[in-house]
Amino acid sequence: MSDTGVTVKKCQDFSEWYVEVVLKAELADYAPVKGCMIIRPDAYAVWEKIQEVVNQKIKATGHKNVYFPMFIPESFLKKEAEHFEGFTPEVAWITQGGDTPLEEKLAVRPTSETIMYATFSKWIRSWRDLPLKINQWCNIVRWETKATKLFLRTREFLWQEGHTAHATSEEAEAEVMYALNEYKDVIENYLAIPVLIGTKSDSEKFAGALYTTALESIMPDGKALQMGTSHNLGQHFAKVFDVKFIGEDKQDHYVWQTSWGITTRLIGAMVMVHGDDKGLVMPPKVAPVHVVIVPIPFKGAEPEVIAAKAKEIAQTLKAKGISVVLDDRNEYTPGWKFNQWELKGVPIRIEIGPRDLKQGQVVMVRRDTCQKTPVKEIDIPATVEKLLQEIQDNMFAKAKAILQEKTTSVQTYEEFKKVLEEKGGFIKAAWCGSPDCEAKIKDETGATIRVRPFQKEEPTTNCVVCGQCAKETVYFARSY
Amino acid sequence: MSDTGVTVKKCQDFSEWYVEVVLKAELADYAPVKGCMIIRPDAYAVWEKIQEVVNQKIKATGHKNVYFPMFIPESFLKKEAEHFEGFTPEVAWITQGGDTPLEEKLAVRPTSETIMYATFSKWIRSWRDLPLKINQWCNIVRWETKATKLFLRTREFLWQEGHTAHATSEEAEAEVMYALNEYKDVIENYLAIPVLIGTKSDSEKFAGALYTTALESIMPDGKALQMGTSHNLGQHFAKVFDVKFIGEDKQDHYVWQTSWGITTRLIGAMVMVHGDDKGLVMPPKVAPVHVVIVPIPFKGAEPEVIAAKAKEIAQTLKAKGISVVLDDRNEYTPGWKFNQWELKGVPIRIEIGPRDLKQGQVVMVRRDTCQKTPVKEIDIPATVEKLLQEIQDNMFAKAKAILQEKTTSVQTYEEFKKVLEEKGGFIKAAWCGSPDCEAKIKDETGATIRVRPFQKEEPTTNCVVCGQCAKETVYFARSY
Repeated sequence: MSDTGVTVKKCQDFSEWYVEVVLKAELADYAPVKGCMIIRPDAYAVWEKIQEVVNQKIKATGHKNVYFPMFIPESFLKKEAEHFEGFTPEVAWITQGGDTPLEEKLAVRPTSETIMYATFSKWIRSWRDLPLKINQWCNIVRWETKATKLFLRTREFLWQEGHTAHATSEEAEAEVMYALNEYKDVIENYLAIPVLIGTKSDSEKFAGALYTTALESIMPDGKALQMGTSHNLGQHFAKVFDVKFIGEDKQDHYVWQTSWGITTRLIGAMVMVHGDDKGLVMPPKVAPVHVVIVPIPFKGAEPEVIAAKAKEIAQTLKAKGISVVLDDRNEYTPGWKFNQWELKGVPIRIEIGPRDLKQGQVVMVRRDTCQKTPVKEIDIPATVEKLLQEIQDNMFAKAKAILQEKTTSVQTYEEFKKVLEEKGGFIKAAWCGSPDCEAKIKDETGATIRVRPFQKEEPTTNCVVCGQCAKETVYFARSY
Repeated sequence: MSDTGVTVKKCQDFSEWYVEVVLKAELADYAPVKGCMIIRPDAYAVWEKIQEVVNQKIKATGHKNVYFPMFIPESFLKKEAEHFEGFTPEVAWITQGGDTPLEEKLAVRPTSETIMYATFSKWIRSWRDLPLKINQWCNIVRWETKATKLFLRTREFLWQEGHTAHATSEEAEAEVMYALNEYKDVIENYLAIPVLIGTKSDSEKFAGALYTTALESIMPDGKALQMGTSHNLGQHFAKVFDVKFIGEDKQDHYVWQTSWGITTRLIGAMVMVHGDDKGLVMPPKVAPVHVVIVPIPFKGAEPEVIAAKAKEIAQTLKAKGISVVLDDRNEYTPGWKFNQWELKGVPIRIEIGPRDLKQGQVVMVRRDTCQKTPVKEIDIPATVEKLLQEIQDNMFAKAKAILQEKTTSVQTYEEFKKVLEEKGGFIKAAWCGSPDCEAKIKDETGATIRVRPFQKEEPTTNCVVCGQCAKETVYFARSY
């Protein structure tokens, strides 16, 4: 099994374990282009599930999908100074079309604010055209110079970017929270990963935004992972790209804008949070396969009877909308198949052997707990449905317990550094609000403010860095 | 209406009419980057419908969606000489990442054979790994130097590319035809556009393929449009990228490969074939909105009663899975709304005025024929369903009649040139099979062989160019 199974324990070498699971469970592969990745079928199916859920949500609330060009003239990127400065170090540039050098080089989109809003100024004329709420699913390029990691940091990735324009600041604020809360639902209730939500500090906000809200989770190695962001752009871009409307008051006004996105990195988070030493564990709600059926033939036990029963069960489950694979390949043993499907994280395995057949039952095995239960044939569909929900709930509960376990309140900077070194995770600490204290912590420890929670907690100590009066309690962590 | 409605007649200036319809019906817009386009919500919704139908088909037959990087190292493109020569003149090149010049320039994918097959050679080991059948939905870049046209020829477009590897030549051949026939179904039965299918001549085949099959249709201006292609790649790429498998015979074999694709240009074809002087006409099976309901209030006629009835009808239809917009905006007149929704091509309009209300009926207007019919309230859902099917069928029948009308058999080269000048369309003519005759026609008339039909017709004359013995009857046309 050593060449096909996972050879590293999750608690031993988390980073190596992660890469092995992603490669061996066939979620992704290294591409022949440095820093890029190939998203393989099982991971792409998870992405399609995320697309389906997000599309359903945002379409129901009047957002429409579109597609804007991926090329952005350099002059556009430059229009919002903060935005340009933030993105230009990691832009891939097209300088040549066919044999001809381009007059102006083109950025491959690192994000689409500038190209979209240049057009918004053409589309939006009066209050009747508002709100404008669009979204696109596309590829994004950021020319990373740091070490890349499959799903988490690659030079090209897939994402969804929502962009909206509103008549009032209040509407834009509500939209920012709308997107954030829908992301929370997707990440917690589909991917089974609990998140903290809140705003970013100024130093961590999106380049060009008024403020950024974010969802953050903690990975088993104690490092935080940003799971999605929703930005209030205020009128910054509107002023630069001249996105104005004539109000019901007949006056010109700049629009208020938001943008928000989640990426294929969520698939990496899913692997890290739920996987175990046998491989991947897929949350049922996004799993491309819910149930694998493995017939276990013995000599003289009428394999064709077992095969027929396995097929019948598969059909019954499929009719209920459950995604089933019947693994009746002859070239592999049942044991090999068990390992293979555990590696791929399929939530439920059904085994049918000659003895089961006689007793009118099957053996059902949960991937999350590895628990085996005999189930009467007649109870199979109901048990599968119940079990899928139980697995989903259990995975979230386990992940939530880890998040809680990996969150520590500290009183002093000494304690802060000690916890960060020994345990990692989120560190709740009082902060005075000064960028200097934030910078000092980052320089000295590598930790940054991940979120300033919406639910304010009154600081019980002074600022953990400077000892001055604290303004708020925030969550620090080292991060991916 | 002149600034919002279509000002050019389809029969007067087809090209200008097309651009007006695309822009004014808000299907697409020019992008601030030369040669690129913005796909707006109604057109993107058609693309999503095409995606849904194609995904359903190909997933049911074991194809899986994936995502490969968009960057292809120059050295990869160069590996298959014919392929490189075919694509390199229209490649956009990345030469710089951030501030750093790249060591090897990267092509933005003009198609993904080379990047994918380099990886296939890693994934495919034995006959157990075959067939490998994958597909991806993505953006494609071809740096056009000719004049661009929204949807039909842009420097970036969206497509789907299927790529398969098989153990035998026969399986690859069957796959080529499988894809072609599924495309035929999508284009004829969803987009309501009749097509000719057949193989391309060697001079028109995909760069690097053994042979190319294609679907071709004729536009109202008499020019042909290639609607999709399905290539048999033989073992050309397998040999270059070393894609081999160990067969059941324990010997090494090269795989047999296919690739196939359709693009967002299909949306342009839909506009051209079905649109009229009022704007777009959407085939019901891909229309984002099936029915628009326009309440017609008169003074003193209890507008809230009409509004309530309109809402009730909308809900009844929605419950049947019909996509409905209730246009109850106060800021526009019914007449303005009629024009607007006709421009956008919505298949059915339902008008409800005070007189209708009294008589327990509505007026239903078909977009394709502009026919108005009073419909009893109780019959609305059944009538809408029936009408949608009728409209779909009628649109296809009309388009088929045009295809037939625009297909002419000719006996001589004189006649060929005359028909091409005066009428255009497909010209059926006898061909000796020589590339010289094909080149001569192209040079002298601009027409090319669009398809060599699968259903062979015995030539009744000698070759229309050289007068030598003819091998087959083929379809010529000038094309987009």
